[in-house]
Amino acid sequence: MTRPVHRAAPATDTPIRQGSLRAHNLDLTFRQIVGARRAPISRSELATVTGLTRPTISRIVDELLAGGLIVEAGPARSGNSGRPRVGLNLAPTGPAGLGLDIRVDALSACVVDLTGAVRHLEFVPHTQRDAGPEETLRSLAAMATEANRAAAADGLTVVGATLAVPGPVQDGSVVRFAPTLGWRDVDAGAALRSRIGPAELPVLVDNDARLAALGELYASEQELRNFVCVSGEFDIGAGIVLAGAPFVGSRGWSGELGHVMVESDGQLCSCGATGCLQCYAGIQQILAAVPAGRHPGPAAARQSPAVVIDGLVSAGSPEILAALDRAGQALGIAISALVNLVDVDTVLLGGSYSLLASWLTEGIERELRTRVATSAWAPVEVRPAPLGPDAAVIGAALSAVDKVRRDPNSWLARVQQGEGGWPRQTA
Amino acid sequence: MTRPVHRAAPATDTPIRQGSLRAHNLDLTFRQIVGARRAPISRSELATVTGLTRPTISRIVDELLAGGLIVEAGPARSGNSGRPRVGLNLAPTGPAGLGLDIRVDALSACVVDLTGAVRHLEFVPHTQRDAGPEETLRSLAAMATEANRAAAADGLTVVGATLAVPGPVQDGSVVRFAPTLGWRDVDAGAALRSRIGPAELPVLVDNDARLAALGELYASEQELRNFVCVSGEFDIGAGIVLAGAPFVGSRGWSGELGHVMVESDGQLCSCGATGCLQCYAGIQQILAAVPAGRHPGPAAARQSPAVVIDGLVSAGSPEILAALDRAGQALGIAISALVNLVDVDTVLLGGSYSLLASWLTEGIERELRTRVATSAWAPVEVRPAPLGPDAAVIGAALSAVDKVRRDPNSWLARVQQGEGGWPRQTA
Repeated sequence: MTRPVHRAAPATDTPIRQGSLRAHNLDLTFRQIVGARRAPISRSELATVTGLTRPTISRIVDELLAGGLIVEAGPARSGNSGRPRVGLNLAPTGPAGLGLDIRVDALSACVVDLTGAVRHLEFVPHTQRDAGPEETLRSLAAMATEANRAAAADGLTVVGATLAVPGPVQDGSVVRFAPTLGWRDVDAGAALRSRIGPAELPVLVDNDARLAALGELYASEQELRNFVCVSGEFDIGAGIVLAGAPFVGSRGWSGELGHVMVESDGQLCSCGATGCLQCYAGIQQILAAVPAGRHPGPAAARQSPAVVIDGLVSAGSPEILAALDRAGQALGIAISALVNLVDVDTVLLGGSYSLLASWLTEGIERELRTRVATSAWAPVEVRPAPLGPDAAVIGAALSAVDKVRRDPNSWLARVQQGEGGWPRQTA
Repeated sequence: MTRPVHRAAPATDTPIRQGSLRAHNLDLTFRQIVGARRAPISRSELATVTGLTRPTISRIVDELLAGGLIVEAGPARSGNSGRPRVGLNLAPTGPAGLGLDIRVDALSACVVDLTGAVRHLEFVPHTQRDAGPEETLRSLAAMATEANRAAAADGLTVVGATLAVPGPVQDGSVVRFAPTLGWRDVDAGAALRSRIGPAELPVLVDNDARLAALGELYASEQELRNFVCVSGEFDIGAGIVLAGAPFVGSRGWSGELGHVMVESDGQLCSCGATGCLQCYAGIQQILAAVPAGRHPGPAAARQSPAVVIDGLVSAGSPEILAALDRAGQALGIAISALVNLVDVDTVLLGGSYSLLASWLTEGIERELRTRVATSAWAPVEVRPAPLGPDAAVIGAALSAVDKVRRDPNSWLARVQQGEGGWPRQTA
């Protein structure tokens, strides 16, 4: 295979020398193994897809095996010859990511390994309304320490932690504005870093809707490339994925779908504007449509709002059906704006919406058909998000381990320096 | 300067060999000259910023000079030593791009050279309402042939042509839907290719708002990186630029701002939906607010609508002032949705809006302050777009020559093969 000299060169701002050439080719090879999505791939297949020589591939594979990033698995996908070939796969031991999430009714923690498998998932009942940021962050830190211990017992090394929050985050640390939590300018990253050991463990904070979209991206068996995952939890947020990568906007504040106007002269929102989507399709707002006397008994207080709504629908509450209808239409208007502006072809209903999808989809689709300029020849698909309310915490864990997927060379350099991954274990 | 081996390698799917390494380093060097934005840069400065050796830089510079992509200019930016150094600049002769645009009142054609300078800009009065796509495209082809001739006389080689159209375009050729032109499924690219010689000249069709944003991006003296350029011409479109590059969405259909809902139970739009921004802030709709008897006389029929509106404002028409007020508010609601979803920090009012900015800005800013979730700590800036109604045709020409900026190696390979650029000249 020869390539013409004038082929477009990789667009980077680094000159390429021998050392980085080695790193580049290792990176390229590793990405093929990541891209094979748990299907074992052989050394000869790697040589074919990368265009690198067999000896180069052999050297790289040895390096990846020694660094604990890959393992030899069962036979690779059948080739032309009858000879069985050894398949290579991502290592189920080795680097792992830790995710944390604040839900309406619980806190959750999650550990995901390099293959993307969930190895640990825990919930602790928690009512944010009664707890300040201090208490909530302390509880999250305790869960993180426990999850880290569980990961170590499974032979995993946690390489980073990410907290999902409902609102825009600055510098990967400060929650600027999360009205439904009652948080404003809370440096959640610093608070967690001071409590989760060791000091060198990277701890980041990110938007929950964006992390949920990342979770759904990895979980998608159909290899979704362009979609929005609309999460209804505390707030309504949109995680946008374009060309298989999360879309963050210029400052990481994209996807504030809950504050798109859907009603002229509408209700006053907690953000200070009127007629925001949040006022008509927020989970709490849907529930508020039911008169107090018709609410289910105290047993429901420990259930998630989506489960309560589902119960009310089953009981035939006309108020809840009307509220869901209005929510579906409002979601449809706002999502139409998103599709018109950002251009995605698939809408996943995530978070609590995944549990209520059968009551919301029709109204959303009706608005999309009417309002999306390109819908006549390119209809938008709407469906429930497979991971549902767990997507944000799984996505948070994935985002923490993803840096090893994207930059295997840094991990290998650490291992070679005898550091055994970024953080020393606390357990 | 040494770099650690584990530094993240360039993310490409191509293995790097000697040939592409040369191409990569030439590309890297050329990008520094492009990035210097007409300020001459010396060989030694290039060595410093790229990290490449002086001999490598010398060889690359010789190659770029021989290929006609750069010229030796006046002295470079002053260095530490007193010795004057020869600056290098993009060549004002050589590759050029051809842009075409359909406006409310005229067709336009433009030639831009590699430095981004406008070398030719022509308008022909044209009322789209009276002409079908066939006639319009024939007129555009005639203008393109004339512009190509003018470019050749200036020592330029047109390497591609781009037509700007008000609506979503498929495969860089087919106008799917441009209601204000009355076009549906018009293969404008094929029509132009059959009329503009030579056959190998690449002819593309793209959305006018996106091309306008590209024009403003290049023209921006302050090096804008993240902005939306809202164009009011026939239709209302938004060209989004993120991290200094046009944002296209998953299928190239981003930025359909004109069809974002701004009024519940609003007017019926030509797209079939109700309450679209277009119905309240379209240039024709603003003008329609003036009773027929109060319209200016027949002399105004040859003026652009924005000029007519400006005249009515000067004459103190209360109807036009009310219409502009409503338009500003409607624009503010829709642009707030865009900023909430896409996250940009600057709004340029382009096309006809650039001429009406002083009547629209206040209403837009009021809505942005209230509706953008992050506006409290990160206000959005609103200002008129410098290129105004010329941005789309200039952006179209820039997009055609931009491929040489992004891929100088392909141009050099052509020159070395004696082809003197992509197309042979028709003149």
